[in-house]
Amino acid sequence: MKVQNWRQVKETKPASGVTMRILCGPAEKAPNFVMRHFEFEQGAAMPFHAHPWEHEFFVIEGKGVIRTTGKELPLEKGDSALVMPNEMHSVMNPNKEILRIICLVPLVDGKMPTAPGTK
Amino acid sequence: MKVQNWRQVKETKPASGVTMRILCGPAEKAPNFVMRHFEFEQGAAMPFHAHPWEHEFFVIEGKGVIRTTGKELPLEKGDSALVMPNEMHSVMNPNKEILRIICLVPLVDGKMPTAPGTK
Repeated sequence: MKVQNWRQVKETKPASGVTMRILCGPAEKAPNFVMRHFEFEQGAAMPFHAHPWEHEFFVIEGKGVIRTTGKELPLEKGDSALVMPNEMHSVMNPNKEILRIICLVPLVDGKMPTAPGTK
Repeated sequence: MKVQNWRQVKETKPASGVTMRILCGPAEKAPNFVMRHFEFEQGAAMPFHAHPWEHEFFVIEGKGVIRTTGKELPLEKGDSALVMPNEMHSVMNPNKEILRIICLVPLVDGKMPTAPGTK
């Protein structure tokens, strides 16, 4: 069993204004899926993209927008979102308050998959 | 894409004082893993048990305790926990404030697995 607070976890910057921390992943020997913590500063967005794996999101704090083909939906604290494999999507934060979300992906070939256009 | 707030989702009572809502699961066609929202009232606990699948937890609100063999650790807002397959574990809330957590499990044979001793 491993317990840790997200603030203790090393951060990376997958896109401008976006901070990612891997809470349960390959380093922790997660067997099937990876839990990541994201912070979006005001104006930050992940690129509009698709990939063969799903996302499961949960909004911890703040408000944002989730976009898919032909549709934009508001995201707020307590919302979950399921993005299906190969579904176009983007998350953005137009607000002053930080948007904090949990985003899960399955392991692909034993590794955490990386979205195209991100670091 | 499906977006919903946890408060809109139908609840069940897997144990006394424990409320579960399935946010992303088989009904939403989640391909690999299931996101559930749990609330623990004061004094509520899940039974001390183990199963062949892992858990990934994230604490949204409140404080609690997570127990494994020979060890008890505090849980508080912002903590994640990875419980490995076949690892004995229990979560409890000794405090007045509601404990709210996200708990993920893999699909097993296409279904959400149910812990022994729970409903």
